[in-house]
Amino acid sequence: MDQVNLEAYLRQQKDLIENEMETRLTELPIPDQLKASMLYSLQAGGKRIRPVLLLASFEAYGTAVEKTLSTAIALEMIHTYSLIHDDLPAMDDDDYRRGQLTNHKKFDEATAILAGDGLLTHSFALIANEPLLTDREKVELTGKIAVASGPLGMVAGQILDMQAENEDISVPLEQLEKIHELKTGELLKFAVYAGAYLGGATEEQLTHLTRFAHYLGLIFQVQDDILDITGIEEALGKPVGSDVNNNKSTYPKLLGLEGAIKQKEIYVEKALASLEQAGAIDSQLKALIDYISNRDH
Amino acid sequence: MDQVNLEAYLRQQKDLIENEMETRLTELPIPDQLKASMLYSLQAGGKRIRPVLLLASFEAYGTAVEKTLSTAIALEMIHTYSLIHDDLPAMDDDDYRRGQLTNHKKFDEATAILAGDGLLTHSFALIANEPLLTDREKVELTGKIAVASGPLGMVAGQILDMQAENEDISVPLEQLEKIHELKTGELLKFAVYAGAYLGGATEEQLTHLTRFAHYLGLIFQVQDDILDITGIEEALGKPVGSDVNNNKSTYPKLLGLEGAIKQKEIYVEKALASLEQAGAIDSQLKALIDYISNRDH
Repeated sequence: MDQVNLEAYLRQQKDLIENEMETRLTELPIPDQLKASMLYSLQAGGKRIRPVLLLASFEAYGTAVEKTLSTAIALEMIHTYSLIHDDLPAMDDDDYRRGQLTNHKKFDEATAILAGDGLLTHSFALIANEPLLTDREKVELTGKIAVASGPLGMVAGQILDMQAENEDISVPLEQLEKIHELKTGELLKFAVYAGAYLGGATEEQLTHLTRFAHYLGLIFQVQDDILDITGIEEALGKPVGSDVNNNKSTYPKLLGLEGAIKQKEIYVEKALASLEQAGAIDSQLKALIDYISNRDH
Repeated sequence: MDQVNLEAYLRQQKDLIENEMETRLTELPIPDQLKASMLYSLQAGGKRIRPVLLLASFEAYGTAVEKTLSTAIALEMIHTYSLIHDDLPAMDDDDYRRGQLTNHKKFDEATAILAGDGLLTHSFALIANEPLLTDREKVELTGKIAVASGPLGMVAGQILDMQAENEDISVPLEQLEKIHELKTGELLKFAVYAGAYLGGATEEQLTHLTRFAHYLGLIFQVQDDILDITGIEEALGKPVGSDVNNNKSTYPKLLGLEGAIKQKEIYVEKALASLEQAGAIDSQLKALIDYISNRDH
């Protein structure tokens, strides 16, 4: 798929997800301030990588994407809640994200905490109450997403990341990978798994796809670290060099910039091989490897 | 049931829940700091009203209580997460709860935010991964608990409560009831509903029980407000008169102390009538009305 087609595809999927997300949240009878705060962060843009991955993974095996939308939105809501809580003064203390005020700067800290709690909790209601899913599918997705985003997954990654920053020493590569796998990898893996599972992939295909998603998560992170050095501030929506200044462990710091780029290429090869084995090499997932590997923000 | 038996019953159920909760959390491979923080607040005591209600409601209709334990623990985890986040500096800014340091004072704010997020998220994993429940039961419970505790339930109650306090004027009784219903009532209702549902209550019994739980929630709140005036500091674990000092709307403030006591008695009558109609008047739920209505903390 050429660049033009990929961009058109991404735009289309992003629009689908954003419209659906806004519609479903707007119609809920939620107190005004809470709804405004939840919507503010959901509408703050971003690449929507997780739901787009979920849809692309579904389309590699199944048709009639409607049944995946609740899960895709739930996933983006969980990602958004994690950003809101991450930005709080007690955590990363960020005033801006993607060039916009963070939730607690736009509203206040209490509202931001509750908006995060609300998004997280409502994501489970979305899956449980989706009429297009069977009970089996709902249970499978709920269990997997709770483990991926909870104290065995993303929340664990956040606390380990925080501890690594506080320790003021660089962590070894192995530890760095572990943190990233928990903090971002588990939700990316869920995205790929959930789509393929709902699309009817076999157990064996799911195993290969989970490995594909593992490498995709690593590519995502290496590129994040590379962009922190080589990126353009306007595209990133945050200052270049902030990781360096925060004394964060990054791939370029551990391996050098050249070494990090080489490492990314190794991960790309492995991701492609896993995708081939999963029988999904002709899907949009292949284009998404390029996209994630070469993105400028 | 006389006072001695009720206390023995409560003690037994509380022990069952606390042991089970501790065992299940301790065995999870969670980063040390995060696990310590989650366990700290889970072990900080309290009446365990919600899981006890769930078990009592189950026993009014069913036997073999094992199948309810994951849901009972999930419910207590959600309650505990809400307390941790409620105590944060940006929210109620409390240093002590039940005579112990609050989570963010014992650990730090970032850890407390993540411990809350972790408890909330893991509660859904507990239900989804419980082998004693059918998929239908899991979906029913997950959907109900997410709605009860999310932006349509408890989280809505928290933001409305915060706004009422900030407005610096007393809210009318109707508004006060609405806030309490969302903030505490919905989870109490879930406790009663979930137990009876798993115990095999009929649709009609569930309807009456939901009304019973509604009044029980109101009794709970009136007594909370009364204790803020007449309570003993040691029993409460917080200063007497803190609601008055915080300019909170309370039943005694709106109705006078006598009026509040009278209102509580009206709610008790209604709770008893609903319990009778639900065919559960001979269960521990009856004793729990007395307990909640006359508790000293």
